[in-house]
Amino acid sequence: MGEFDLIARYFARPLPQGSAGGAIALGTGDDCALLAPAPGMHLAVSSDMLVEGRHFLSTVDPARLGHKALAVNLSDLAACGAEPLGCTLALALPRADAAFLDGFSRGLWALADAAGCPLVGGDTTQGPLNLCITVFGQVPAGQALLRRGAKAGDQIWVSGTVGDARLALEVFRGTLALPGDAFDAVRERMERPTPRVALGVALRGVATAAIDVSDGLLGDLSHLLRASGVGATVQAGVAMTTGATSAHLKALGAERCAAFALSGGDDYELVFTAPASAADAVRAAGAATSTPVTPIGRIDAEAGLRVVDASGRPLDRAFSSFDHFA
Amino acid sequence: MGEFDLIARYFARPLPQGSAGGAIALGTGDDCALLAPAPGMHLAVSSDMLVEGRHFLSTVDPARLGHKALAVNLSDLAACGAEPLGCTLALALPRADAAFLDGFSRGLWALADAAGCPLVGGDTTQGPLNLCITVFGQVPAGQALLRRGAKAGDQIWVSGTVGDARLALEVFRGTLALPGDAFDAVRERMERPTPRVALGVALRGVATAAIDVSDGLLGDLSHLLRASGVGATVQAGVAMTTGATSAHLKALGAERCAAFALSGGDDYELVFTAPASAADAVRAAGAATSTPVTPIGRIDAEAGLRVVDASGRPLDRAFSSFDHFA
Repeated sequence: MGEFDLIARYFARPLPQGSAGGAIALGTGDDCALLAPAPGMHLAVSSDMLVEGRHFLSTVDPARLGHKALAVNLSDLAACGAEPLGCTLALALPRADAAFLDGFSRGLWALADAAGCPLVGGDTTQGPLNLCITVFGQVPAGQALLRRGAKAGDQIWVSGTVGDARLALEVFRGTLALPGDAFDAVRERMERPTPRVALGVALRGVATAAIDVSDGLLGDLSHLLRASGVGATVQAGVAMTTGATSAHLKALGAERCAAFALSGGDDYELVFTAPASAADAVRAAGAATSTPVTPIGRIDAEAGLRVVDASGRPLDRAFSSFDHFA
Repeated sequence: MGEFDLIARYFARPLPQGSAGGAIALGTGDDCALLAPAPGMHLAVSSDMLVEGRHFLSTVDPARLGHKALAVNLSDLAACGAEPLGCTLALALPRADAAFLDGFSRGLWALADAAGCPLVGGDTTQGPLNLCITVFGQVPAGQALLRRGAKAGDQIWVSGTVGDARLALEVFRGTLALPGDAFDAVRERMERPTPRVALGVALRGVATAAIDVSDGLLGDLSHLLRASGVGATVQAGVAMTTGATSAHLKALGAERCAAFALSGGDDYELVFTAPASAADAVRAAGAATSTPVTPIGRIDAEAGLRVVDASGRPLDRAFSSFDHFA
């Protein structure tokens, strides 16, 4: 199978006639794709690269990998409140492996179709396995959710739950054991994360600042705080891992569960801020998009990030976030 | 040096106040960059991935690699007649190597500044060296140069010269020898290709179809012919390698030089078509952008690509183009 056969067989498809409407003027097959954002729209752009052994295990199901490679990029659009338009895929493969490509492209296209984010171009080459997706979305000028914008007194919210992916990773690493059903649940969250695109769009004009949780809740929240020039107090033990309600996970201990939730990473949830007066609007955005939203703390004028327990007592433990070069 | 230090030190810079004007609404440092194309513009997007040992040698000067990684992407914008707006870089590195990053980022930024194509976002991770750049440009709706559009009777043109990069590669491979000055000239073309962005913009409304030459002149021209549903006759021996005028290169023989020019690859020139009546307009576009343009053949109604010598006799030899998985 040559390079052009490979693209034709797995990645080139007619453009969907759908919600993105005429936003894709030209798809795969030319030197560039052509996007036509609606008048008054800004184009939101983000690029994420996934490397074997670092972002995914070599044993991962290729269809799940296809899903995840796009999901982590869609999560960046979600954090800006942008509606997906399309994406490009650059792919380095050790060899043209039909089984891998078939599964990977199916997983990718399934999410692309569901999110209205068709593949419009890219590149394939031989090399150590590497997946680089760039996503394009649109958001009305001036309405993008940014990291700056959080104000003292704002509530801090998180979508869904955090910590599951890290729990699954620790099972793969052999540092803890879970029974089958609990493992299946957290493994699903690690391998098939849910980008919160609809919630991000619904939070336009409601949230004052947002970021997606990829490296760990506290670490990513710290970026938002720095960009906004504020501090925060966060309560440990809320919005915990899905499985944390099970007896098996309770046996891990509250502190370890809190650590996974606060600094586990790979969650692809949104952490965002909104004035206390907008709490009903936040809950309505969550309900309208079938996305759980939970208040986990408040923005302080005082710099720094304080973690407290359920009774408001400060926790001393440091929670470090993921750094690819640390 | 951690991931965020690395980004701050080498890749995050204030946005230039320049020709792209207000086209970048938000640069590095948030979940997405925000682009604001001018009203009536389509956004042209392309993504290329470069892998060590396949697209560049491990011994390459990092600054030249930074130039080339962006240049090959700008060449895709050029082939569509799009004006650059910005780019993202996703970078996998075995380790945070300051000498590499310093050179690479200098080379990248030098071309980014010259082309008005600032880095607006991206990703860094640890992994086998891999560079993925996605470029964004704008072109008035309906004016993009596409691969389809060539008509029987059109002249075929090429910018600059083709074959130089392949000559340099063969010297590196040890299959031929060149004296220092001739080698320096072709090595410069291999390591620091010149994307023909200004020519591409000048050819809007003049050229009927265009593609950039990355895998070899004949191979890339074949894509254009297929997209346009036409054939072509091309004359070997024109628009040859820069060094082909030197006595040293003449010693290689006309046939070998022709092979390098016709199927060498890595040229990043434009091959494009225009009606014979537009020949003066093509020459004017070349002159206005200081880019040599040379007619090398004509479009035929009959399918297929015929290569003839200076006296019009068909050449039998097959010229295959580069395929990453063949």
